[in-house]
Amino acid sequence: MPRTIDWVDGRIVLVDQTALPELRTVTVATVDELIDAIGRLVVRGAPALGVAGALGVALAAATSSGAALELVADRLAAARPTAVNLAVGVRAAMAAAAEGPAAVLAAALAVRDEDIAACHAIGERGADLLTELCGPGSLRLHTHCNAGALACVEWGTALGVVRSLHERSRVALVVADETRPLLQGSRITAVELAALGIPHRVVVDGAGPSIVARGLVDAVVVGADRIAANGDVANKIGTYPLALAAARAGIPFVVAAPESTLDPATPDGAAIAIEERAEEEVLTVAGTRMAPAASAAWNPAFDVTPADLVTVIVTEKQVWRPSGE
Amino acid sequence: MPRTIDWVDGRIVLVDQTALPELRTVTVATVDELIDAIGRLVVRGAPALGVAGALGVALAAATSSGAALELVADRLAAARPTAVNLAVGVRAAMAAAAEGPAAVLAAALAVRDEDIAACHAIGERGADLLTELCGPGSLRLHTHCNAGALACVEWGTALGVVRSLHERSRVALVVADETRPLLQGSRITAVELAALGIPHRVVVDGAGPSIVARGLVDAVVVGADRIAANGDVANKIGTYPLALAAARAGIPFVVAAPESTLDPATPDGAAIAIEERAEEEVLTVAGTRMAPAASAAWNPAFDVTPADLVTVIVTEKQVWRPSGE
Repeated sequence: MPRTIDWVDGRIVLVDQTALPELRTVTVATVDELIDAIGRLVVRGAPALGVAGALGVALAAATSSGAALELVADRLAAARPTAVNLAVGVRAAMAAAAEGPAAVLAAALAVRDEDIAACHAIGERGADLLTELCGPGSLRLHTHCNAGALACVEWGTALGVVRSLHERSRVALVVADETRPLLQGSRITAVELAALGIPHRVVVDGAGPSIVARGLVDAVVVGADRIAANGDVANKIGTYPLALAAARAGIPFVVAAPESTLDPATPDGAAIAIEERAEEEVLTVAGTRMAPAASAAWNPAFDVTPADLVTVIVTEKQVWRPSGE
Repeated sequence: MPRTIDWVDGRIVLVDQTALPELRTVTVATVDELIDAIGRLVVRGAPALGVAGALGVALAAATSSGAALELVADRLAAARPTAVNLAVGVRAAMAAAAEGPAAVLAAALAVRDEDIAACHAIGERGADLLTELCGPGSLRLHTHCNAGALACVEWGTALGVVRSLHERSRVALVVADETRPLLQGSRITAVELAALGIPHRVVVDGAGPSIVARGLVDAVVVGADRIAANGDVANKIGTYPLALAAARAGIPFVVAAPESTLDPATPDGAAIAIEERAEEEVLTVAGTRMAPAASAAWNPAFDVTPADLVTVIVTEKQVWRPSGE
């Protein structure tokens, strides 16, 4: 599988995430094209957007500098205003702006390489940890949403752990929740698993907890969007039911995420605002309205898994058992 | 809302469940038309199919008798071979075959009326019970799949409880899981709630447990497909996560089902075979393939909620607390 985002011959090459499950790359030569690609979700996922921001500045720095470059950078940083990583990536590259285009490019490539290194470190530490928790045999792992290479550069976080185990020939099966409403499990995670040749089964989100209860998986491994100071974990809606099921079944519930996800300023999950997205994502399915016109929906994008249900959190720097066991 | 299935002027009138969310009725004048309607899922739901079987025999008895009638009845009973209620309904009406068409019709109408009476009794008893469990105020209720009028004749089981409470002006809100893969929540339950003017919100299945955890509902009310002797409950896939969440949140998890659902011959949930349905239902959504061609799926149709997570089971005859609290 190609890198989700990379720098090739002075241009940015992206896996077009709107074409998935077909794996197709697009080449971006200008910041305007990149802003368009970000807006159309050709590239998505917080780490990948950070790299896009940094490499976009490198594109711009090749032809402009000074105030003109600053203007372009501001426009790029605002391409998706709520994606903080995008602006962080832009700033990281702009920090080298005064030193000229070569320095900007070096700074941008460093953002890319840091993501790759962090994901590999998470993968290796997570693989070691699962061996410690589950023993040395082949593992059946359950995941939710997409915390894979297609949200990062080339390795992924939760799926990075899966890949590191797969490199050790230790993965018997991955069960992937489809992850309604946006189906990142079917459309993205399954694509990664298929490309890697890892045996996998997609299940509807409602089936996940009973798959765990029936003893069909050995551990649950998910990513995180934000981790509070007490170890409460906000992640894609539908994560919490897997945590409940894993606790009852007595199997590990493992969260794999970069250090940047840790938010010590947020004391616990109750302090995490849950983004409420458009009702249409629930009421329509693949473009077809399913519920009657009079029906309303709730569409929370995330849920919070309390720390006592989290067996362990793995980052590129540490292993943290928030429940203290 | 019209009855799901009824006998009008010598014909069967059905709500066409393939047209939902549009509420449209079709009239069936012959057993061949009825068999076609059953095959195309114009009528579905175990109780409704039982009534269809009985009324279909009444249609046939108007124009044939003896061996000819028996042949037609056998053909009708086999229209969906795994739907045991269909054959039971056929047999109930055929028991009167020797007494002539009027007796057959009376027996068939009795099958219809028994469903209506049972559902109303479940509704009233369930409404009383929820008042006892949650107090006299307005309630916010969470349900899964469709255990409503459109699976029965005119009232429903879990939704029958909701309707009985609604008649007492006691329902503030119903949260309905969409219920992938077949979306009975969006396509059927939401239609019933909209027709009744009951305020409701559809949520993706993955959101249900955190809706419970966030205190947004007061109780969970679901139907059942089979209830084992120890009180373990098999119901539509995605029920178990709501039971886990309700137990943790300390809110009632109520199962509303007819006595015919109780299966004393099955000792516990482990003895219940879980039907595995076609992978395509998971891998395609609204006719569009979502996962890559190399991906496989698991598609269990039911899950089992252990008795210790069930606050109470309500039938037309009893209130049963399987966890003994």
